[in-house]
Amino acid sequence: MESKERCVLRPFFEPRGVAVIGSLREGRGEGYVAIENMLRLGFAGRIYPVNPSYDQVLGMRAYPTVDDLEGPIDLAVVITPPLTVATIVEQCARKGIRAVIVSTEGFAEAGKAGAKLQQQLLNTARHAGVRLIGPNTLGIVNTSNGLITNPYPMGYKRIRKGSIAYSSQSGVIGAHAQPMQDRSYHVGKTCDFGNKCDVDEADWLDYLMDDPETRVIAMHMEAIKDGRRFMDRLRRTAARKPVFIFKTGRSEQGARAAASHTGSLAQSPQICNDAFKQAGAIPVNTWQEFWEMPKVFESQPLPQGNRIAIVTLTGGVGVAATDVAMESGLAMAQFSDATMQILSGLSSNLTKNPIDVGPTMVLTDNPLAVYDTALTAVLNDPNVDCAAIILFAGSAPPVGTTVSMLARLKQRISKPMAVWMYGPRMHFRDKLSRQLEAFGLPAYLEMETAIRALGIAARYAKVKSELGCEASRGSPTIITRRRVENRSKSPAS
Amino acid sequence: MESKERCVLRPFFEPRGVAVIGSLREGRGEGYVAIENMLRLGFAGRIYPVNPSYDQVLGMRAYPTVDDLEGPIDLAVVITPPLTVATIVEQCARKGIRAVIVSTEGFAEAGKAGAKLQQQLLNTARHAGVRLIGPNTLGIVNTSNGLITNPYPMGYKRIRKGSIAYSSQSGVIGAHAQPMQDRSYHVGKTCDFGNKCDVDEADWLDYLMDDPETRVIAMHMEAIKDGRRFMDRLRRTAARKPVFIFKTGRSEQGARAAASHTGSLAQSPQICNDAFKQAGAIPVNTWQEFWEMPKVFESQPLPQGNRIAIVTLTGGVGVAATDVAMESGLAMAQFSDATMQILSGLSSNLTKNPIDVGPTMVLTDNPLAVYDTALTAVLNDPNVDCAAIILFAGSAPPVGTTVSMLARLKQRISKPMAVWMYGPRMHFRDKLSRQLEAFGLPAYLEMETAIRALGIAARYAKVKSELGCEASRGSPTIITRRRVENRSKSPAS
Repeated sequence: MESKERCVLRPFFEPRGVAVIGSLREGRGEGYVAIENMLRLGFAGRIYPVNPSYDQVLGMRAYPTVDDLEGPIDLAVVITPPLTVATIVEQCARKGIRAVIVSTEGFAEAGKAGAKLQQQLLNTARHAGVRLIGPNTLGIVNTSNGLITNPYPMGYKRIRKGSIAYSSQSGVIGAHAQPMQDRSYHVGKTCDFGNKCDVDEADWLDYLMDDPETRVIAMHMEAIKDGRRFMDRLRRTAARKPVFIFKTGRSEQGARAAASHTGSLAQSPQICNDAFKQAGAIPVNTWQEFWEMPKVFESQPLPQGNRIAIVTLTGGVGVAATDVAMESGLAMAQFSDATMQILSGLSSNLTKNPIDVGPTMVLTDNPLAVYDTALTAVLNDPNVDCAAIILFAGSAPPVGTTVSMLARLKQRISKPMAVWMYGPRMHFRDKLSRQLEAFGLPAYLEMETAIRALGIAARYAKVKSELGCEASRGSPTIITRRRVENRSKSPAS
Repeated sequence: MESKERCVLRPFFEPRGVAVIGSLREGRGEGYVAIENMLRLGFAGRIYPVNPSYDQVLGMRAYPTVDDLEGPIDLAVVITPPLTVATIVEQCARKGIRAVIVSTEGFAEAGKAGAKLQQQLLNTARHAGVRLIGPNTLGIVNTSNGLITNPYPMGYKRIRKGSIAYSSQSGVIGAHAQPMQDRSYHVGKTCDFGNKCDVDEADWLDYLMDDPETRVIAMHMEAIKDGRRFMDRLRRTAARKPVFIFKTGRSEQGARAAASHTGSLAQSPQICNDAFKQAGAIPVNTWQEFWEMPKVFESQPLPQGNRIAIVTLTGGVGVAATDVAMESGLAMAQFSDATMQILSGLSSNLTKNPIDVGPTMVLTDNPLAVYDTALTAVLNDPNVDCAAIILFAGSAPPVGTTVSMLARLKQRISKPMAVWMYGPRMHFRDKLSRQLEAFGLPAYLEMETAIRALGIAARYAKVKSELGCEASRGSPTIITRRRVENRSKSPAS
């Protein structure tokens, strides 16, 4: 049932056992930390520490060498000096381990000698029938089985799970570097390709396109190794699932920097973003967009059209949000007569879009009821395809009840929404954001990102709808569960 | 010595006494909260609560009406029902109060009847010789004397002071809505113009252009009332101090939303951003840029050219930062031979720009010494005009020593820098950010904003340099303290 391509990355992400070869020095050794991270995430398989200086580590038996290992082991994580890696790869092959993550630095990114060493390592691996991720990588995460190979301490206890697969050519996507507990990135899998001497993004897409645990893909890329193969896989994957691409090394100088960073050559922007779009992928332009855009697809249904309602508590932000909505290809929804009747019953000020509920709420004894009624009416309106909700993240008690109200609303209404919060304390914003994400409302750090995410969802839905039959072969959870229709006319004025 | 124009806003921002007319209900009344906020900021003048139902509030004597007031009072804050406001303005005039902030909502933003009421209020004020801010405003802040008229609770104890003046047509810039303690916005003054029936941004610029406490200006605007007058003041002010403008209501729909929000008509983007640039102002495009861009001028010297050094701990971010630098009109600095010698003494990997110190730091026993040496060499390099520093905000002890090292560096080197941090915990980032800002290193929430801020500083310095004599008439603190020179050639490759 499974394509051959999917098999390449499967032992990496779904191993029965993992050998960790590296320093087991308590608290600081890379192998020790990687194992500690795996224990923290509750890795479902067995862990095999390998180091001749230790008998035991973290309550586990340690093995002197790979040759001493016994058991069903599919993956090895190697964090040993550069010159030792090829030999370890050969040992792994002898033990039937066909997937090796080479965390070790000092290969192509470190100059000519390193590049030669990397080529030798690759030759060894090919000869031995072993596939490599890396070198110079923090490796991978799979939140569904608790696998993590990062040799740096995470700095928190758990990763908020989801069905988004993130990849990068940089360790900056590592769990030690991103607030994967504080922010809801809905992490399913992550992969740092490092120097990308063997396994690359084409293999990644081969694996993910059929992976039932992955609904959305976000890739940071500097260089494309085999353009034809990558674009083929991108087209096939993008027809099934949303694929975001953050391409860096866009400028000539950036490309040069990329070459010196991972030893690979980055392509010019022309070759890239246009081609990505043609292939059905979605380019993003900042790290923040890379982390925050994909989740609109993870937790929200696709919009049936591009008509947005903006529900704000402060008029000024409503105006700014309207600008961004227009610039993102959205149209301001014109409320139906039925909605207008409900809204004007609350206040004559509430019949416009953006709908500024703030002044009416200030003047009533039960502001939450006003908010609930207005928001429900707007979201139930057949002329509204999606909604941006601008919330105040204050410290006062109404916040808790607002959250419960939004949670109930979210259960009743299946239209995509995105939330932006402003407020006087950073940690209130962070907390409210987590509360909303917990029941499936994507919460954004920046208003503009929230609106653009909805714009992207509407455009994606339109393209899918136009592709018609191709989409119907795609992910049942996202693409085909509702007829996607675009009503992109601006409201008459 | 003082221009007549400056006098218009002076009693608003530098009053000897302030009358607060509104509900004094404990904890919730708008007048009560405004007074409480003023006490919290330590307002240097005297406060006169006015409300016939109270004898005392917050340890102060309350007065039944404005007519009962005695003392040198320059400003009144009115938060009473719409129909009462005109009478109170007349009372103020009788008491010699020529500056009134009308917080009350329900004027032009609330429809035709409100617009008529607003016109009547304005007529009354003109006749009485009283100037108005508002109506429909949260009013103003002046951190230098602790003045704040916001009738909502701040939610924190203090505002981080500085010399940036922020204005808006929205209450979203209010101290209750923005993390002015958690983030360093370097707030000097703020002004919410609300419906802007009288005092407007031209008056604001008249006041600020000569205000010694204001070094940088950031304005959010929806509509321009008197284009000719505003542009004249903008040109004059921008010749002296950096002026950022965030213009919303750019789209037709956004302009309509603005009209219904403050009852004023917003202008099209053509009339605006191009004209602003021609006048020497700096357009920004998001709320985040509005809050975060200006501080690069507040705490940093102007760059002598556009050559940037990017010092990163992770190569991938260095590449992305290089792209943004190129797109922001910066050039990658080519290090001098002397610098190259120091850097190659640390590691052969460190001679490129962006300079990725991470891998070298990992391999040494004293990573901080490596970092210090590399950063000092780069910043001392005559080929480097400014630097972006990409930091890791982790929880481990080196962070504290890194901060001290950067503090020492900042004291020795007077080139503009901007910092972006990544890391696993939101509150670590926030804390590190505050630590850096405390000694004058601007710390950004987003990498792209940090780099763009430096790009803006370089472009601003170039324009100033080209304007020559005009600049020399400008603010001595910013413009003329060094000869501004632009070396905008890209490094040869």
